Amino acid sequence: MKKVNKNDVEGSSPDGTNGVVFRQLVAEDLGAPNFYMRAFDVAPGGNTPKHSHDWEHEVYVLKGSGKIVLDNGEERISEGDAIFVSPNELHQFVNDSPSELSMICVIPKPGREM
Amino acid sequence: MKKVNKNDVEGSSPDGTNGVVFRQLVAEDLGAPNFYMRAFDVAPGGNTPKHSHDWEHEVYVLKGSGKIVLDNGEERISEGDAIFVSPNELHQFVNDSPSELSMICVIPKPGREM
Repeated sequence: MKKVNKNDVEGSSPDGTNGVVFRQLVAEDLGAPNFYMRAFDVAPGGNTPKHSHDWEHEVYVLKGSGKIVLDNGEERISEGDAIFVSPNELHQFVNDSPSELSMICVIPKPGREM
Repeated sequence: MKKVNKNDVEGSSPDGTNGVVFRQLVAEDLGAPNFYMRAFDVAPGGNTPKHSHDWEHEVYVLKGSGKIVLDNGEERISEGDAIFVSPNELHQFVNDSPSELSMICVIPKPGREM
């Protein structure tokens, strides 16, 4: 067993994000063989890039609210929502609320054949 | 994209648990191809079974505190902790606090060769 607290992980702001702090929580360093758990904190007015890729997301909204923008519209998201984004589906997370939007996002291990 | 709110998912209490409400969040019904996201709420005094299995857990503590009991001891866990439990590692989650312990737990899709 290995553990790390989100507050002890240094954050970064990936290219294409705006007002986002990204943290790897469970990945190579903890020995994860199949999928990685990451955290995204999106400030009010912030967003992730509008993009698609050939792997899925499984997201859990820890706190706050906002929207997910899709190819064919958008949907509100809020605390307690579990969200599945399919491989190759266009998506963007936007915080249009006055409070921080915090999410967990799980992805397949990069480079793994899945 | 598909989503479900934790509060809208009917809970169950799996065999071997005590004071636990379990919910599948992202699984077959949302089309997840590789890994499943589930929620566990453990009441004060409650616990999951002390067991091991040949797949990993990736856990995030949403709120509360408690401990994880391992083969060689135990460790405190609390809100914001991300926990990696290796395949075949003995483990048990115990809520020895006066408040609910809530966690997300991600596992490989059952039956998938990983």
